Amino acid sequence: MNNPQLNQDGQLKHLLSIEGLPKAILKQILDTAESFVGVAEREVKKVPLLRGKTVCNIFFENSTRTRTTFEIAAKRLSADVLNLNVGTSSQAKGESILDTVNNLIAMHADMFVVRHSQSGAAHFIAQHVAPHIHVINAGDGRHSHPTQGLLDVFTIRRYKPDMHNLRVALVGDVLHSRVARSEIHALTTLGVPEIRVIAPKTLLPVQVEKLGVQVYHDMHEGLKGVDVVMMLRLQNERMNGALLPSAQEYFKTYGLTQEKLALAHPDAIVMHPGPMNRGVEIDSAVADGSQSVILPQVTYGIAVRMAVMAILAGSTI
Amino acid sequence: MNNPQLNQDGQLKHLLSIEGLPKAILKQILDTAESFVGVAEREVKKVPLLRGKTVCNIFFENSTRTRTTFEIAAKRLSADVLNLNVGTSSQAKGESILDTVNNLIAMHADMFVVRHSQSGAAHFIAQHVAPHIHVINAGDGRHSHPTQGLLDVFTIRRYKPDMHNLRVALVGDVLHSRVARSEIHALTTLGVPEIRVIAPKTLLPVQVEKLGVQVYHDMHEGLKGVDVVMMLRLQNERMNGALLPSAQEYFKTYGLTQEKLALAHPDAIVMHPGPMNRGVEIDSAVADGSQSVILPQVTYGIAVRMAVMAILAGSTI
Amino acid sequence: MNNPQLNQDGQLKHLLSIEGLPKAILKQILDTAESFVGVAEREVKKVPLLRGKTVCNIFFENSTRTRTTFEIAAKRLSADVLNLNVGTSSQAKGESILDTVNNLIAMHADMFVVRHSQSGAAHFIAQHVAPHIHVINAGDGRHSHPTQGLLDVFTIRRYKPDMHNLRVALVGDVLHSRVARSEIHALTTLGVPEIRVIAPKTLLPVQVEKLGVQVYHDMHEGLKGVDVVMMLRLQNERMNGALLPSAQEYFKTYGLTQEKLALAHPDAIVMHPGPMNRGVEIDSAVADGSQSVILPQVTYGIAVRMAVMAILAGSTI
Repeated sequence: MNNPQLNQDGQLKHLLSIEGLPKAILKQILDTAESFVGVAEREVKKVPLLRGKTVCNIFFENSTRTRTTFEIAAKRLSADVLNLNVGTSSQAKGESILDTVNNLIAMHADMFVVRHSQSGAAHFIAQHVAPHIHVINAGDGRHSHPTQGLLDVFTIRRYKPDMHNLRVALVGDVLHSRVARSEIHALTTLGVPEIRVIAPKTLLPVQVEKLGVQVYHDMHEGLKGVDVVMMLRLQNERMNGALLPSAQEYFKTYGLTQEKLALAHPDAIVMHPGPMNRGVEIDSAVADGSQSVILPQVTYGIAVRMAVMAILAGSTI
Repeated sequence: MNNPQLNQDGQLKHLLSIEGLPKAILKQILDTAESFVGVAEREVKKVPLLRGKTVCNIFFENSTRTRTTFEIAAKRLSADVLNLNVGTSSQAKGESILDTVNNLIAMHADMFVVRHSQSGAAHFIAQHVAPHIHVINAGDGRHSHPTQGLLDVFTIRRYKPDMHNLRVALVGDVLHSRVARSEIHALTTLGVPEIRVIAPKTLLPVQVEKLGVQVYHDMHEGLKGVDVVMMLRLQNERMNGALLPSAQEYFKTYGLTQEKLALAHPDAIVMHPGPMNRGVEIDSAVADGSQSVILPQVTYGIAVRMAVMAILAGSTI
Repeated sequence: MNNPQLNQDGQLKHLLSIEGLPKAILKQILDTAESFVGVAEREVKKVPLLRGKTVCNIFFENSTRTRTTFEIAAKRLSADVLNLNVGTSSQAKGESILDTVNNLIAMHADMFVVRHSQSGAAHFIAQHVAPHIHVINAGDGRHSHPTQGLLDVFTIRRYKPDMHNLRVALVGDVLHSRVARSEIHALTTLGVPEIRVIAPKTLLPVQVEKLGVQVYHDMHEGLKGVDVVMMLRLQNERMNGALLPSAQEYFKTYGLTQEKLALAHPDAIVMHPGPMNRGVEIDSAVADGSQSVILPQVTYGIAVRMAVMAILAGSTI
């Protein structure tokens, strides 16, 4: 079976989704990220690994937040960075995605960070570029957002290194989450024995238990004794629709409060991918509390993105 | 009294407003800016003072002009620069200002240049960031725009170094000016003995004379013998409202022409913060004339912003 | 006669249009570009020729594609790059073009890359800037887009170095092309003996034959034996108007297919300035075929823009 993310020597060539990453590659990314955590704390936060390379952020849908993290990561690696908001430019002139990408390759772009509202866009581009070009999926539709998944796993491993002995709960909108599925996959790969999902039925995929998780509809039950509470972001557009009664109602039942958090292991960490809806899926007292690792997640996100870029740039053709 | 702009050793930690800057700090900024004037004239216009630092221009309202000056200043200091137009991104997703800023700090941004339409936004951010983070106010509502005020003062001092012997006139919309009040404060602090404001009553704050200025409603009287004529920008939205009859009428009464300028000291300099409304508050013959220092103001604006950034970066925690 | 593009020593000072470039300057640009082709293939794609200089992309109309090529070229020369989309900023505040430009010069911008929807905008700016400032026209209305013309000529010379022995056909919308006229001029200057234009009468300028070209209305006749086929882009807005029946109809008559291309010389190259309308002016089989040099054009476009910037920066005042 041909894995589009790996080259013939089994090295990482593109990062498209966590699914399909061998355990060794997953560990390589996490271990490399570890070495970059220190770079951000230096006086001069630069390493020359991508000097003279051009990283192209090609965003077919706008996401300042994600674009910023990749831009910082690339600049800390000394790359030149090009930001292209393609939605507003040549697409309007009827140019196809591939023509746009091929033009940028002809300008000697070396790496593409792709964000698109449609699932599979990054895969499609990766399939068609020349062998020396690397593609990173920065979110495609509801499908995948691998660097977010990786930074979550990295954060868990940093705070809870003994992964073979962990209980992790994912809480909230598993159905529409770009990352929940990938994380379940990655955590399982890394040996986490017990993963729970806690959500109303309307926010769970059908047959979610087939992913190997335990399903809870009640926070008080689901949070009991867990070591990691991963809150998922509730999209605004879900709140007033058929799926949920109201934001207030949701908070009452599935919002993480200090009181509910007290049911988890006393050392449990609280995670959230951001941006948070304070008072909807999480209470401010928890978000800013001592168990929250939400801001470290952001910090580690830079290290993980640097690691991915450095590994891709170092892979041989 | 705790001064939010200074650290415990009395060093500049944030630049939020000219009010509250001790005279020694004011002079430190102006003297440091003097040393940067030369950098812009070199073949290679770079100094490595902020190498490896990340300066984040976080603009909650758009201002290409101001953003550009800070971007140039930061790049000449060798910083990495991130431009965030927050109005169009995560704010739309309901994320609070502080969450946005804390995320950027978690990405190891070192300095924030903040522009916001509401007074006090930069103060608010400065109060909540970690001690090693520096905040520069790049304009908040009508309240403050300290680097503009500082560059004006710097320009006056460069052309008229004997400040204890100066007559300065501010002409026009003092009421809505972000900087008029700060400049009156700074010039007084630096020993300027006579400051005049010339404006119709509708464009003056109530009890303006309490700031220690002389009030004139007539250009011919007010300009007599002054050494510095600072024209203020008339916002377009004021022109056709209740405050003013029309742009033409305003120009006739308060527009600076060669004929009116002839009443000032023969060596008087003419200043304007830009962008100019030619033919409204200033005649082109004056704007482009030999007494105009309007473009040098722009040049010195870069030096002053470099100075502020360099001083902040050099302050100990 | 005063040539606004040259200084008193006959060196290139601004690049405004191909018309008026002496043959020696044309060759200097092409030869210099040759030396930059290699830079893009290096591991570290950087040369320090513009280190410490500030290149300002000042775009009064949006063109991500063109802006990107200049940004890459400037960064490969180690310049600092400022991107200003002026349409959305100070112009809205009533500031004139010249005030905008003079402000940027006061900030010590060294070079302007100007894009404007009106013919002559770059000329106008070049006439009014200080002698040490350089202006590059990046497209002004229908008038001129000299770096596009130069990269086309460079591409032809690279693939067909014996220019005194060439037949070149320009196919399509000559009337609205920013570059067709310049290229006819440049190719003639460099000794190309036979230039053909192939187009419907509605897409040809009146008296086009006065430019020294042979006029064809039929592809089958016009393509016979040519060495270079330059397809011109058909603007979408032309397709459904009075000038053309429909895109399908146009493709049938003037679209380049493998079958029509077979009439040209077997070694003929196919060019297109991009973005392509596949299925309108060109068939995908040709665009992606072995005779296509459309992507190399993009690559050479970077080298040509680097060459122009390096020559301008090196010219003495």
